[in-house]
Amino acid sequence: MNGQKTTAAERAGPVVRVTVQPLGRRVEVGNGTAALAAIRVAGPELITVCGGRGLCGTCKVIAPGHGFTPPTEQERELLTPAELSAGIRLACQATVVADAWVDVPPESLTAPQRLQFEGRGASVAALDPAVVAVDVQVRPPGLDDLRSDATRLEDAVALAGRPATRTGLAVLSAAPVTLRAQHWAARAAVHSYRTGECEIIALLPEGMAPLGAAIDVGTTKLAAYLVNLETGETVATGAVVNPQVTAGEDVMSRIAYADANLSGAGDLHARLLDGINGLLGDLRAQIGAPAWQVVDAVAVGNTAMHHLLVGLPLRQLGRAPYVPAVTEALELRGADIGLELAPGALLYLPPNIAGFVGADHTAVLLAAGAAESARNVLFLDIGTNTEISVACGGQLWACSCASGPAFEGAHIRDGMRAAQGAIERVNYLDGTFGVHTIGGGAPTGICGSGILDAVAAALEAGIVSKRGRLARAHPLVIRSADEPACVLVPAALTAHGRDIVLTRADVGEIQLAKAAIRAGIELMLTTAGIEADALDEVVVAGAFGTYLDVTSAVAVGMLPKLPKERYRQVGNAAGLGARQLLASRQRREMADDIARRIRYVELTTHPEFADTFARELTLGEIVRDPANGNAR
Amino acid sequence: MNGQKTTAAERAGPVVRVTVQPLGRRVEVGNGTAALAAIRVAGPELITVCGGRGLCGTCKVIAPGHGFTPPTEQERELLTPAELSAGIRLACQATVVADAWVDVPPESLTAPQRLQFEGRGASVAALDPAVVAVDVQVRPPGLDDLRSDATRLEDAVALAGRPATRTGLAVLSAAPVTLRAQHWAARAAVHSYRTGECEIIALLPEGMAPLGAAIDVGTTKLAAYLVNLETGETVATGAVVNPQVTAGEDVMSRIAYADANLSGAGDLHARLLDGINGLLGDLRAQIGAPAWQVVDAVAVGNTAMHHLLVGLPLRQLGRAPYVPAVTEALELRGADIGLELAPGALLYLPPNIAGFVGADHTAVLLAAGAAESARNVLFLDIGTNTEISVACGGQLWACSCASGPAFEGAHIRDGMRAAQGAIERVNYLDGTFGVHTIGGGAPTGICGSGILDAVAAALEAGIVSKRGRLARAHPLVIRSADEPACVLVPAALTAHGRDIVLTRADVGEIQLAKAAIRAGIELMLTTAGIEADALDEVVVAGAFGTYLDVTSAVAVGMLPKLPKERYRQVGNAAGLGARQLLASRQRREMADDIARRIRYVELTTHPEFADTFARELTLGEIVRDPANGNAR
Repeated sequence: MNGQKTTAAERAGPVVRVTVQPLGRRVEVGNGTAALAAIRVAGPELITVCGGRGLCGTCKVIAPGHGFTPPTEQERELLTPAELSAGIRLACQATVVADAWVDVPPESLTAPQRLQFEGRGASVAALDPAVVAVDVQVRPPGLDDLRSDATRLEDAVALAGRPATRTGLAVLSAAPVTLRAQHWAARAAVHSYRTGECEIIALLPEGMAPLGAAIDVGTTKLAAYLVNLETGETVATGAVVNPQVTAGEDVMSRIAYADANLSGAGDLHARLLDGINGLLGDLRAQIGAPAWQVVDAVAVGNTAMHHLLVGLPLRQLGRAPYVPAVTEALELRGADIGLELAPGALLYLPPNIAGFVGADHTAVLLAAGAAESARNVLFLDIGTNTEISVACGGQLWACSCASGPAFEGAHIRDGMRAAQGAIERVNYLDGTFGVHTIGGGAPTGICGSGILDAVAAALEAGIVSKRGRLARAHPLVIRSADEPACVLVPAALTAHGRDIVLTRADVGEIQLAKAAIRAGIELMLTTAGIEADALDEVVVAGAFGTYLDVTSAVAVGMLPKLPKERYRQVGNAAGLGARQLLASRQRREMADDIARRIRYVELTTHPEFADTFARELTLGEIVRDPANGNAR
Repeated sequence: MNGQKTTAAERAGPVVRVTVQPLGRRVEVGNGTAALAAIRVAGPELITVCGGRGLCGTCKVIAPGHGFTPPTEQERELLTPAELSAGIRLACQATVVADAWVDVPPESLTAPQRLQFEGRGASVAALDPAVVAVDVQVRPPGLDDLRSDATRLEDAVALAGRPATRTGLAVLSAAPVTLRAQHWAARAAVHSYRTGECEIIALLPEGMAPLGAAIDVGTTKLAAYLVNLETGETVATGAVVNPQVTAGEDVMSRIAYADANLSGAGDLHARLLDGINGLLGDLRAQIGAPAWQVVDAVAVGNTAMHHLLVGLPLRQLGRAPYVPAVTEALELRGADIGLELAPGALLYLPPNIAGFVGADHTAVLLAAGAAESARNVLFLDIGTNTEISVACGGQLWACSCASGPAFEGAHIRDGMRAAQGAIERVNYLDGTFGVHTIGGGAPTGICGSGILDAVAAALEAGIVSKRGRLARAHPLVIRSADEPACVLVPAALTAHGRDIVLTRADVGEIQLAKAAIRAGIELMLTTAGIEADALDEVVVAGAFGTYLDVTSAVAVGMLPKLPKERYRQVGNAAGLGARQLLASRQRREMADDIARRIRYVELTTHPEFADTFARELTLGEIVRDPANGNAR
């Protein structure tokens, strides 16, 4: 074969190496192994509703190299030409024939695994953090130089090019001992305030990297990231349940709790701080970092979580006209609210937008590029409360709508959270439902994305009507607990031996959620003066926004019918935004800019909201009159 | 008597009214009563070494009106023409013959009474406080105005002419509830930072005056003043013993305590805070003010007290080259160090000058006008440690010298603090010592000013030589506990029935103190390039500086021989400076200016100090060579 090119398959031995991203893990598998199996060896669990038969199209991966067999017939059918040309493959169809590289996108991962793959590694923004560490050699005092320790430290820091306007109390208190113990060598952490002032906030030992903490305070979940402020790298991540959940699942019940109990707000504040401090402690333990190494922090959350974290009252958030205590960005000493950081470190909270559009939405908009884009973009952060923004012609509007807890599995007969045993994907194939369960075992219930899939699949199969009624004549429709229900998984195949069903009432919950979100979208578009077609992009953020299947969401009419490429599921964009705010002062300015420019639209009193909502209770895409948005 | 002028005595009835300042108290006494007796009726106790016989000249009062008999022969002898023309009288000689007005200067008051007469009432500086209260009517939120509570409060404050750059955490937290409870009317306390930023730090109820606390943190005594920041009036004052005294009487023993005990510094910090918080609580109780009404604070103290208050380490202050942790002015949240003020209120500490010239000396210089004066002025703050500054040709120098505890009554055989039963004034008249005791009863010991008087009197009487030896031939010199001693009060006249004596060793202590202080003065004058004669004024501050008799201090040679009018005893100038700093932002700038301009001179390593000190051990004024300051 001299002088002749060999194919990859010919060059490969019986064993080939596959590098699986974003883990960066390399595994050895037999030549001819399916990519799906190779990835499983490396760890991550992919969604495969059809069980790897090339029927459902859920196990998409990015595999642009020559290490795989060419696309199969099924892939050509299930993937768009754009996807195919971008190297997207179905992991169950692509077979490894040579050393290869494959990247698993978050949407193909089973829900609980997504967070842990998210945002590890590389820098999230051009590095320009609020805190920088400066190595200095301080001039020791002597009879000819009787200046104070603070003055000599400030002078050394200024000589290193970071003139500080003052030295923080914690450093004043530490410097005399630390400087002498370290023979006048020091690593000064200098914080640049938004006002332009600079303060020496901490002293670190030689060579120790300054860390920042990005905290995403969700109503249900607390996620946190530790970032090396010198490299921008995320060095530890983790999440825990928000310990406030025992005081109510959603924001309104937390507000009611704070209001009804004398020490309610204080109790919620304390629980939240306990949760965050515990989580940060775990993250630090992962990398062996002490609390005083964490010299900067950013926290994002909805307005209620923001207020509870800072220790502000909630009552006015629970009553019309629902105004926040504060909207502008805050920069607080962590110690002032009980957050365990380096003693002098500050906590930055980006601006809130309104009572129900919080700093987390500001972070989502930031991470999704709302500040920079001149395009028409719709931003959705779907949860119990859904925030919707639209950018159009350099302008920004935001609104909030109550989409209910159905997508968290609440108020659904067999609903559950996205945990082990939850059905997260549903397909209707050949007269029967196919499901994918988190963990791969027998199902115990159905989580938000599964419910949305199930309604979409049942709608397409004609089992559910546009008005949400179940077709009683269909063989899968039964009466269950005196209510019409569609069997998704028969008792024989479930973990608990009972049918897993979708009831009429379940469909009703999805109709309410769909109507609220879509009405919000339509009124945002009306406000911006554009139609859905004019959107260049639809950014879907948040936990549920990551898990949901856009095709299903479009099928039920929750999202507008647009080419699929215009949709971008960005995962925990609030967390990404928080890390960007940690890494970059410019991003903090952009967050201010977003909050300053954005106009909040109150839907509850909007003259067209009631009608639009009522119209949108219909499932599926409804035909709208382009003149006034009315169905026709 | 028609058409004829009547004399005051003729017009007066058998009873006349005397108004006694600074108490503002009016008493009725019989026509012909001595001013001394009238003043006693009003309360204050005057010093009368001779027992009111017109011999000692200590009971000086200001009585310029026509309600008194003209000056007596004795007054013409004991008072200078300048004093006489300024209306100064001896209270034992001036007899009331009509309604009259008399002002008792602090130096004529017995020691323990001085503090309580000091600084009551009128404003201490042109009012320009860091905190101002602004009455605002905030616009309530509505569907057409969804701005945050903080934004609407800031807008209202800006409309009232005090644009605030931010709202403090305590106010963010209080505003939603307070504004609604007060129907959107509020009194916002706005703090102007040294950086120019303004922050809303507190909300007060309508009509409530913002108060400030001025705190003088002495090594021995804590003094505090509450000031109405709208009128500048001092509304409550008080003092307590510094609770740290059980850990050592002087600064060096406190430093040693902090160093020797693991939690020593923390313990001293906690005791100090307890003492200050307790004292402020007492002051508030005097006027029924809650802690949250105190919206600004200033503290002054020597560098060690400053560091212990702020919570900074002391160790480096106790070792050569004795550098402070920080010299520049600090503005700290009171809550950060445990000081009980309004939650958002700040504590301002003026700049330290050096390790042994603290922020209290800055306050003394400020109160004594060092920042403004173009004259040649010497400033002395006499204590265990004596700070000496000189202003000359717009330049400022400072030094510190260890003058020892003799003036606090320590290391003196019969020494005691300036308390009930202490001899505070001593005269030598007709071969015997006359004494004045605090409280007027039989003496139990002798305090600092009395010891200085005794040495001066004994020196003049030839009982003590210039080298400090006692004249054994003198009838009052005995041997006591195997040491030569001069009897000041024989056993029969003392409270405890033992002689009160001045020993050779006591004189030695005064020689040491005198030598240290005078050497400091001489080296300061040498540094400034002037001689004592060129001084326009000598300002003597501090507790002992208030009590001491300048004539005695000049007699022993501790202070230079200058016309008595050039001496000014300013009382607790540090406390006055603290109140000025509370009342005026301009004063804070002046304090910065003083600290920036002043040059610290280290005496311990000064090439001429040892010689000068040795020479100054001689009692009395020594003749100096104007060329090199050497005695000749």
